Amino acid sequence: MAIDFRLTARQRELQLQSRKFARDVLSPALEAETLPTAEERFAATKPAYEALIAAGFLRKCIPLSAGGESAGLIDTAIVVEELYSVNASATLTLIGTVLGLLPVLIGGTEQQRNRLLPRFLEQSAAPLAGFCATEPGGSANAGSPPPGEGVRTTATLRGDRWIIDGRKSWVSSATGWDRKGADLLSILCRTDSDAPPERGISILVVERPASGLVFERAIDAVGHRAHLLPEFNLRAVSVSRDNVLGSVGGGLALTGACFTGAAALVGIFAVALMRAAFEFTLGFARTERRGGIHPIIEHQAVGYALADAKIAIETTRCLCWRACQAVDVQSPAAQELAIEAKIHGSETAVRVLTDLMRVVGIESYDHALPLGRLLQDALALPLFGGGNIGVRRRQLHAMLKHPDYDPLTASCEAEV
Amino acid sequence: MAIDFRLTARQRELQLQSRKFARDVLSPALEAETLPTAEERFAATKPAYEALIAAGFLRKCIPLSAGGESAGLIDTAIVVEELYSVNASATLTLIGTVLGLLPVLIGGTEQQRNRLLPRFLEQSAAPLAGFCATEPGGSANAGSPPPGEGVRTTATLRGDRWIIDGRKSWVSSATGWDRKGADLLSILCRTDSDAPPERGISILVVERPASGLVFERAIDAVGHRAHLLPEFNLRAVSVSRDNVLGSVGGGLALTGACFTGAAALVGIFAVALMRAAFEFTLGFARTERRGGIHPIIEHQAVGYALADAKIAIETTRCLCWRACQAVDVQSPAAQELAIEAKIHGSETAVRVLTDLMRVVGIESYDHALPLGRLLQDALALPLFGGGNIGVRRRQLHAMLKHPDYDPLTASCEAEV
Amino acid sequence: MAIDFRLTARQRELQLQSRKFARDVLSPALEAETLPTAEERFAATKPAYEALIAAGFLRKCIPLSAGGESAGLIDTAIVVEELYSVNASATLTLIGTVLGLLPVLIGGTEQQRNRLLPRFLEQSAAPLAGFCATEPGGSANAGSPPPGEGVRTTATLRGDRWIIDGRKSWVSSATGWDRKGADLLSILCRTDSDAPPERGISILVVERPASGLVFERAIDAVGHRAHLLPEFNLRAVSVSRDNVLGSVGGGLALTGACFTGAAALVGIFAVALMRAAFEFTLGFARTERRGGIHPIIEHQAVGYALADAKIAIETTRCLCWRACQAVDVQSPAAQELAIEAKIHGSETAVRVLTDLMRVVGIESYDHALPLGRLLQDALALPLFGGGNIGVRRRQLHAMLKHPDYDPLTASCEAEV
Amino acid sequence: MAIDFRLTARQRELQLQSRKFARDVLSPALEAETLPTAEERFAATKPAYEALIAAGFLRKCIPLSAGGESAGLIDTAIVVEELYSVNASATLTLIGTVLGLLPVLIGGTEQQRNRLLPRFLEQSAAPLAGFCATEPGGSANAGSPPPGEGVRTTATLRGDRWIIDGRKSWVSSATGWDRKGADLLSILCRTDSDAPPERGISILVVERPASGLVFERAIDAVGHRAHLLPEFNLRAVSVSRDNVLGSVGGGLALTGACFTGAAALVGIFAVALMRAAFEFTLGFARTERRGGIHPIIEHQAVGYALADAKIAIETTRCLCWRACQAVDVQSPAAQELAIEAKIHGSETAVRVLTDLMRVVGIESYDHALPLGRLLQDALALPLFGGGNIGVRRRQLHAMLKHPDYDPLTASCEAEV
Repeated sequence: MAIDFRLTARQRELQLQSRKFARDVLSPALEAETLPTAEERFAATKPAYEALIAAGFLRKCIPLSAGGESAGLIDTAIVVEELYSVNASATLTLIGTVLGLLPVLIGGTEQQRNRLLPRFLEQSAAPLAGFCATEPGGSANAGSPPPGEGVRTTATLRGDRWIIDGRKSWVSSATGWDRKGADLLSILCRTDSDAPPERGISILVVERPASGLVFERAIDAVGHRAHLLPEFNLRAVSVSRDNVLGSVGGGLALTGACFTGAAALVGIFAVALMRAAFEFTLGFARTERRGGIHPIIEHQAVGYALADAKIAIETTRCLCWRACQAVDVQSPAAQELAIEAKIHGSETAVRVLTDLMRVVGIESYDHALPLGRLLQDALALPLFGGGNIGVRRRQLHAMLKHPDYDPLTASCEAEV
Repeated sequence: MAIDFRLTARQRELQLQSRKFARDVLSPALEAETLPTAEERFAATKPAYEALIAAGFLRKCIPLSAGGESAGLIDTAIVVEELYSVNASATLTLIGTVLGLLPVLIGGTEQQRNRLLPRFLEQSAAPLAGFCATEPGGSANAGSPPPGEGVRTTATLRGDRWIIDGRKSWVSSATGWDRKGADLLSILCRTDSDAPPERGISILVVERPASGLVFERAIDAVGHRAHLLPEFNLRAVSVSRDNVLGSVGGGLALTGACFTGAAALVGIFAVALMRAAFEFTLGFARTERRGGIHPIIEHQAVGYALADAKIAIETTRCLCWRACQAVDVQSPAAQELAIEAKIHGSETAVRVLTDLMRVVGIESYDHALPLGRLLQDALALPLFGGGNIGVRRRQLHAMLKHPDYDPLTASCEAEV
Repeated sequence: MAIDFRLTARQRELQLQSRKFARDVLSPALEAETLPTAEERFAATKPAYEALIAAGFLRKCIPLSAGGESAGLIDTAIVVEELYSVNASATLTLIGTVLGLLPVLIGGTEQQRNRLLPRFLEQSAAPLAGFCATEPGGSANAGSPPPGEGVRTTATLRGDRWIIDGRKSWVSSATGWDRKGADLLSILCRTDSDAPPERGISILVVERPASGLVFERAIDAVGHRAHLLPEFNLRAVSVSRDNVLGSVGGGLALTGACFTGAAALVGIFAVALMRAAFEFTLGFARTERRGGIHPIIEHQAVGYALADAKIAIETTRCLCWRACQAVDVQSPAAQELAIEAKIHGSETAVRVLTDLMRVVGIESYDHALPLGRLLQDALALPLFGGGNIGVRRRQLHAMLKHPDYDPLTASCEAEV
Repeated sequence: MAIDFRLTARQRELQLQSRKFARDVLSPALEAETLPTAEERFAATKPAYEALIAAGFLRKCIPLSAGGESAGLIDTAIVVEELYSVNASATLTLIGTVLGLLPVLIGGTEQQRNRLLPRFLEQSAAPLAGFCATEPGGSANAGSPPPGEGVRTTATLRGDRWIIDGRKSWVSSATGWDRKGADLLSILCRTDSDAPPERGISILVVERPASGLVFERAIDAVGHRAHLLPEFNLRAVSVSRDNVLGSVGGGLALTGACFTGAAALVGIFAVALMRAAFEFTLGFARTERRGGIHPIIEHQAVGYALADAKIAIETTRCLCWRACQAVDVQSPAAQELAIEAKIHGSETAVRVLTDLMRVVGIESYDHALPLGRLLQDALALPLFGGGNIGVRRRQLHAMLKHPDYDPLTASCEAEV
C-alpha cells in the first residue's frame, strides 16, 4: 500500500489475454460497421459478443463478491482498454450490460442477485442488460423539482405489481437482439409523483420476456456504428412488487452510485481510442513519405504532434487508474475523481483525435483508414454517461460549493 | 476605399437571393445523404446541382472578365457562406467545379477560355470540372525534388499529343455523374522528368469525352457524404499539345495561384458550418428544457459557450473577407492572408462544432439532428486544399523565413 | 461603402506618424519601468506624456465634432496600435484620459463640453482624466439590485451641491501627477438610494482642484508598471448640481455606452502587444542559434509557432476594425462586436505571448528581453474594462437570450 | 506492488510535516519578494533557507544510499509539493542545490561522495550547490556537432589540474550568498575540443572557495523573484584532475540522467502552483460578492472554471507520481514519463493560472493578491530545465522516431 503503478503478474496476464482476444476476435468483427442500417450492424456483432461471453469477459467485469472474477475497477479498466481500443461498438455492448447490472450489484438484495445474475455469469449465449435512465426530451435534469419534468416514466403500484409507462432512449442494447428486450433492464422511473425527486424515484428491474416493450427506432448515431441505441416505449410493463432495486424512492441516489464507476470507465474508453489512433498514426508517420524524401515522422511538426498525443494518453490513463482505485477503496474523493476522469478523458480524446487526423492529412478523411471511425466513436464520450456540460461539471460545481469541501482530500488517502 | 465592412446594395441582394435558394432548394436536397453508397448519394444531388446552374450560381463565381458575373472573391464568399451553411456536399460540387476552372481562368489563353468556358457559363445542364492534383500516396510534397516522388502522374509528348498516365484521388466530382469523367479536368502532371519540379510539372486540360479515364472507387469520406471524391486511373489519356494551361513547366506555380483563392474560401466554409451549428444550437437552447424548469439557455455554461461560438464566427468571417479582398486587389499579403483564413477557420470550426455538440448534449450524437453532420463536414476543412500541418503552415513558415519578410505588410494596404 | 480593408492616404500617414513618434519618444520612455515604486515609475513617464500631448495625440482621439481631430474609432485604433505596441503604460495613461472624457463627449451638454474640454484640446501641459467606476470590493455587479451593494459611492444633493462619498480603485491616473487628482474625473455614484439601479445611479464630473480626494495607495500591478492605478477616497467631495453628465439616474446606461468603444480598443491593445512580441521573436529566431548550427527559425516547431502567432494577430486586428466601424456607424451589432473584440483579443494575446516565450526559451524569462513585460501587460486585458468572465461574456449571454436576437445581424450592415 | 495511489503512513507524516513547515516558515519568508533588487531579495531568504536545512529538508531529498533520508523521488515529490506551493523562490533554492548535487549522487565515486556530500547532509548552515549547464547564447543545442557551438565552456588539462574558462547563466544560486560561489558547482564543460560532443564534454566539480569565479549580474527574472539566477564568468578556475564526475567525456549522458528526475519535479512544481492558486481562488469565490447578491461561486462560469482547474491539478499530480516512480524503479519508460510530466505540468499550470485570474477578475492583477506572483513563477516552468519547445518535445520526438520504440512500454511495468 504505497503509490505504485506496476501491474501485478495477474493483471499483466489479464492485459495480454485481453489484447490477444481483441486482435483475434474483435478486430475482424469491425466489418459489421459497413452494413447499411444500425440494426443490421448491431446484429452482425452478435458472434463477437458471444465470443466475449464465452471467453469470460463479462464474468471478468462482475465482482468476486457477486460470483464474478473482477477484483476491482482497475482490473476492469485494464481489460476494457484493450477491448475498446480495437472495437468500441462491441465493447460498449459488453459494458452497457455491466452498467445495466450495476443496480443489482450495488443495490440488489441477496435474493435478487441470486435470481438475476446467474445467466450473466455463465460463459454461454449473448445475455444483454441495460440501464434505462435517459428519456426523449432529455434527462440532464433528472433530479429537477417541479415544474421541471425530471424523470417522466412512471411506475404505479396496482396490487402487488408495478405498472410502468413511459419512453426511454440512448440505452445500450435495451431492446435486445430481436427488438423484444434485453435479458434485464434496470428502469429509472417515478414511483411517487407527490414526493420530491430524492424520495419519489426508484429503479425497477424488468426481466425478459416482458410484454409492453415497444421498439420505436434505432438511433442513427454519429459513431459506435455497430452498437444499438434504441428509442422505445414502455406500455404498461408489469413487474412484481419485489422488483425494486435498492429502496423504494432511492432511485436517484442508486443511479448516482452506478454512474460513478461508469464515469471512470469512460475515461478509459478515451485512453483506448487515443491509443489506437496513436499507434496507427505513429506507424503511418514512420512509413509514409507523401511524395517527399523522408518518412513524415522526420518532420518536427509531426513528431511534436505525436509527442503531445502520447502525453495525453499517459496523463489520462494515470488519472483513470487513480479514479478506479478511489472507487475500489471507497475513497471520499471517488466521485470527484471519477467525474474528473470522465471529463478530462473524453474531451482530451476528441482533441487528440482531431490533431492526429491532421498529422495523417486528407487520407484520414477516408473510412478506409481508422481515424475517422475512432473520432466518431470518441465524440460520444463527452456526451454520454452524463454530458460534460449539462451534468458532470455541474456535479463538480456542487461539490466545490459545499462548505465542507476540502480541496486536498483528493490528493491523499493515507494508509490508516 | 477605406476600411469598411458594409455590404453594397448589390451584395446584400446577392446574399438574400442565395439564402432563399439555399433554403428552398439545397435544404431539401440534404435528403440525398441518407442513401447507402457514396455514388448513390452523389447522384441524388444532381437535381439540386442542376438548379444551382439554372439559377446562375456557377456564373456568379466566374469573373466578369471571363464572361461570368463575379465582381470578386468577396462576392463569391457572400454566396458560398449562404449555400454551404445549408448543404456542404452540393455546394462543394459547385466550388470544386470553380476550382477545376481556375487554371483556365488564371492561366489559360484567350483561345482556351473561349473554347473551354462556354458550357460552364450557360445556365443549363450540370457541368462539372475538377482540379486533379492529389494522388494516391499523398501529395503534401508535390514539389519535392528527387528522390521524393512529388507529382507521379506523367505526360509524354508523342507527336502533337500529350499522353497522360497516372492516378489521382480526392478530386471533387472528377469522374462525373456517370464514371466517365467531368466535363473538364485540369491535371497536374510531370511533363519533364529530368527538370527540377519548378520547371518540369505542368497543368494539362482534359475535356470530356476522354478515353482512358478509369474509375476505381468512391472514397467513403467521413463527411460531405453526398459529394463524390473518386480515386481513378489515367491510362494513356491523350490530349492535344495545345492543352497546356499556362506555360509548359509552370504547373506548380499555377497550382499555387489557384489554391490561394481556394484557401480563402475554405475559411468561408468554416464560417458557414459554424453559423449553421450556432443557429441550430441557439434555437435548441432557447426552447429545450431537458427535464428542467428553464430553457437551457438560462444556464451560464450554455450561454457562455454560445457566446464563444459567436465570437469565433465573427472573427473568422472578418479574416476571410480580409483575405478575399487581398486576393481581389492582388495585395502582396494575399497568399499569407488566404492561408491564415484557411488554417484559422478550419481549426476553429472543428473546435466550435465539438463545443456546440456538448451544449446540446447526447441528442447531438443522433443524426436526426444536424450537428453530427456539420462536424463530419467540418473535419475536412483542416485537411483538404492542402492539409494545415503538412502544407499550409509550412508555406507560412517559408514566408517567415524569407529575409525580405515584413510582418507589417499584412496590416496595411494603403491607398496609393 | 463596400467591404474594404485598405487605409486611406490620411490613415496611412497617421499610422506612419504614430509609428515614428512611438519609436522616437515612447520607446526610450520605457526606462521608467525600472524604478522601484509605482508612483516613481508613473512620474517618470510624464515627459513622454507631455510629448504625446504636444504632438497632438490626445486631440487625435477626440472627435471632430468636439473640436478634436478623430474621424472615428478606426482612426483611433490605428494610432493606438502603434503607440501601445511600444509603451503600454504611457499609452494607457492617454487612453485612460480619453475614457475619462467619454461621458462628457457622449453625455455632456454643449455647455459642459465647452467648459470641460478645452484644456484637453490644447497641445500643452499633461492633462489627465479618469472614469471612476470600479470600487474596492469589486464592481462586476455594479447594476445589482439590493441586497447586492452595486455602486457603493453615493452623491447626496445638499442645496445646489452634490456631496460625494465613497472609495474607488483601478482608475487610470485618477489621483494625478501629484496625488491631488486628475484634471477631470467622471464619477459613477448612487444619486438615489431608493431607486432601482437603472434609475438611481449617475455620473458626476469632478474638476481639479477638488478637496476631499484622498490618495490611499498605488496598486502594485502585475503589468503596466509605469501606469498609475490608485486606490482612493472621496470624502465629501462637493460639486455643482450642474455637474451631472447625461441625465440624473442615467449613469449605468451612459457607462455602458462609454465602455463599448473602450472594449473595441482593448482588442487593439491585444493586437499591439502580440505584434510587438511577434516582431521581437521573429528577429530572435532569425538570428539566434542557441548553440546549434542554424538560426532557430529553421526549426519547424519555431516556424509553426510564429505562423500561429501571426494568424492570431491578423485575425484579431480584423475583428477589432470591424467592431470599431460598427461603433462609428452606430450599427445595431456594435455592442456585440466590441465585446467580442475585447474577449477574443485579450485572451488570444495572453495565449500568444506565452507561446512566443516558449519559442525564445529561458531567455524570455529575463526582463532584459521584452516578452516578460509584454505578457505582464497583456494579463490585464482579459481583466480590465469589465472582466471577461464576470462581465463581458455575461453581456453577450444576455443578448443571446433576448427573444429578438438575430444571429445574422452582426454579419451584415447593408448599405441603405 | 500493484497499482495504488495511497500514501504510506510515513509519507503522510512527511506530507503533514512539510505542510506545517511551509505555513510556519516559508509563508512569512515571502516578504523577501518586495525588496527592490534581485540580490537583496535572495539574501532576505537566507533565514528561511537555513531553517529548511535545520529542519532536514535537504537531507530528505538526498537518497538513503548516500546518507540522506529520501526513499525515492515520490517522497521528494510529496515534500516539494508542500513547500513550493507556499514559496517557490526559497524552495527552488533547495531543489537547485539538489540538482547541483545530482552529478555527485549519480556519477560520483564513493570517494567523491564521501568528500563532497557531508556539508550537505548536516542540518546546519546554508549550503548551496548548482548545476552549471546553461550558457549565455543559449544551450538548447548543447549536444550540437560543429559548427554549432554546443557547450562553449572549456576545461584544459594542465599537469594534474583542469583549467576552466567560460560563462554560465541561469544557474540557481551559483554565485552563492556573497557572489563568491556556491559550496559546490557541477560544471558542464568541453574537455576535448576535437572529440564529438558525446565524448568530448564532461562534468567537473568546483568547490568553494574557488578563485576565478566572477559574478556579472543577477538576472531580473519574471518570477521566482527572491531566487538568485546569476550570470557569471569562469576565468581560469582550477580544479584537481580528480574532480571529474562520472567518466571523462561522459558529461552529456550524465547531464541527461540528472535532468530526468528534475523534469518530473518540474511537473510537481506545476501542481504546487496550481494548488495554491486553486485554494486561494476557491476561498475568494466562496466569500466575495463583487457588489452582487451571492458569493461568486454561485455563478456557473465560476464553478466550472474552478472544476476545470481541479481536474488539471489531479491529472498532473497523477502523471508526476507516475513519472517519479518510473525513475525510482528505473523503468525503461522513465525518461519519457518524466519529460511528459514536465511538459504537461508546466503548460497546464500557465493555462490554469491565467484562467483563475479571470475568475477573480481585475483584483488578481494586484500583487496584494497571490495570483500574479504564482503565474509569474509558473511562467518559468515551460522554459527551464530544458525548454518545452527547444529541448523537451525534441527528446520525445527522437524517442518516437526510434525503430524500437514501443508505445505500450509506458503503459505497463509488470511485476517480474
